[in-house]
Amino acid sequence: MKMRRSERIVAVTKILTDNPYKLISLNRFTERFDAAKSTISEDLAIIKGVFSKEKMGRVETVSGAAGGVRFIPSKGEGDIKEIIRDVCKRLSNSDRVLPGGYIYMTDLIFDPELMSNIGKVFATKFADLEADYIITMETKGIPIALMVARALNLPLVSIRRNSRVTEGSVVSINYVTGSSQKIETMSLARRALPEESKVIIIDDFMKAGGTAKGMLDLMAEFKAEVVDLGVLVETANPKDKLVDDYTSLVILEEVDKVKREIVVKPSSWIQELN
Amino acid sequence: MKMRRSERIVAVTKILTDNPYKLISLNRFTERFDAAKSTISEDLAIIKGVFSKEKMGRVETVSGAAGGVRFIPSKGEGDIKEIIRDVCKRLSNSDRVLPGGYIYMTDLIFDPELMSNIGKVFATKFADLEADYIITMETKGIPIALMVARALNLPLVSIRRNSRVTEGSVVSINYVTGSSQKIETMSLARRALPEESKVIIIDDFMKAGGTAKGMLDLMAEFKAEVVDLGVLVETANPKDKLVDDYTSLVILEEVDKVKREIVVKPSSWIQELN
Repeated sequence: MKMRRSERIVAVTKILTDNPYKLISLNRFTERFDAAKSTISEDLAIIKGVFSKEKMGRVETVSGAAGGVRFIPSKGEGDIKEIIRDVCKRLSNSDRVLPGGYIYMTDLIFDPELMSNIGKVFATKFADLEADYIITMETKGIPIALMVARALNLPLVSIRRNSRVTEGSVVSINYVTGSSQKIETMSLARRALPEESKVIIIDDFMKAGGTAKGMLDLMAEFKAEVVDLGVLVETANPKDKLVDDYTSLVILEEVDKVKREIVVKPSSWIQELN
Repeated sequence: MKMRRSERIVAVTKILTDNPYKLISLNRFTERFDAAKSTISEDLAIIKGVFSKEKMGRVETVSGAAGGVRFIPSKGEGDIKEIIRDVCKRLSNSDRVLPGGYIYMTDLIFDPELMSNIGKVFATKFADLEADYIITMETKGIPIALMVARALNLPLVSIRRNSRVTEGSVVSINYVTGSSQKIETMSLARRALPEESKVIIIDDFMKAGGTAKGMLDLMAEFKAEVVDLGVLVETANPKDKLVDDYTSLVILEEVDKVKREIVVKPSSWIQELN
């Protein structure tokens, strides 16, 4: 039984948004809904218009024989500001003060809805980088990185803090944590990442940048091109990090252990959004 | 400017599917789209009908003053079978044979699209359990568990293999891994999980069930009620596990190290689906 436009448009919207960054041929829609190509094109034009007007992401049409349509889950500037402002508000709760100038943020990092939104924020920022893989470091980097990878439709590769025998041949490097100056090891299985890939590194937290520097060094071992490095929270101090180019969302200005005060703010590129 | 039905229905579909299990009041739609309650109700009836017919999940209406509508991302039986059959096919690739009867499955576990689907499979199975939290064990359990948590709109709590000083007061227990009989430690911060919560445990792999047993014991320390335990892959041997009640998706029958053959099959409840 054929569907009416209002019905078909529900199903097409669902299929598009379930498959971020995936090129879907118009034939798939014409066959599934027994509709003419021109009809589906009209449906897509309506969806495209609504998404654009309501800032719900973009619908991109690729013409030609290998063409089709794809959904790009970008966030509007206002939504990005609101998401990050909400993160700042939640992070500034004084109950989060931990010893050593750290703050408790595990609950936020494992909040699936928040991470889904943060994933879309990074995906909006990194939309044009044409990366092949998202790279992170276990454990706390994984939820954010997985959601960035989901939004960009890319595979995720997680670096481990120890080498495990169960993953075949492994590349390990030592690195010095920037803040506590301890020597640690990080490892990645050879088979996990093809050489000369284009990668985006995602992590939850950056203080001095020692771990980030280690990840860059490890990526060099895989001849990977690191096109950006995204962190959820960076600390204002030390000002000079061990890595130069990165994109943070939130800056942790100060943790006053005596007054139990946490000062956080959106990073400058977020503040400059309209 | 008011929207036409075909436009409004795109936006309503997007809002519903972006917010699994979240009750959204009809007022939110009437205000945002400047439409009468009866108009929005008609929109929702159309969306409900299409989702049901196309097996794209359920739209549930809750009546009353505190009522509204919510999207439940359940998968149809046919889709579940297809997703799990695809996992079995990918897992049976002989390149995955690792020493010790293990198989390499890290790439699948960090495949965001696959994990999103697996998350919805578990969410379909566990839809009526009314859990408060999803619990997992770092590292490889996190991607699956995060996607289950996302589909059920629940917070995720990740047990750690070591206690970290940065999370305040911590409960640690020792457990014996069922297969290698080694004594290991797992820990969870007190603040991460309120006492007497209803929880679902999710993990990637179960052999003898030692880790799962450890997680059950740790949950007992938090007075939690474990309503189910979901694992992506269980091994056929040993047949008797250290835990009784669990739900697996895939059974690893045999890994022949000499012939480099992997035999995997969907678990029985999946095979019995129509």
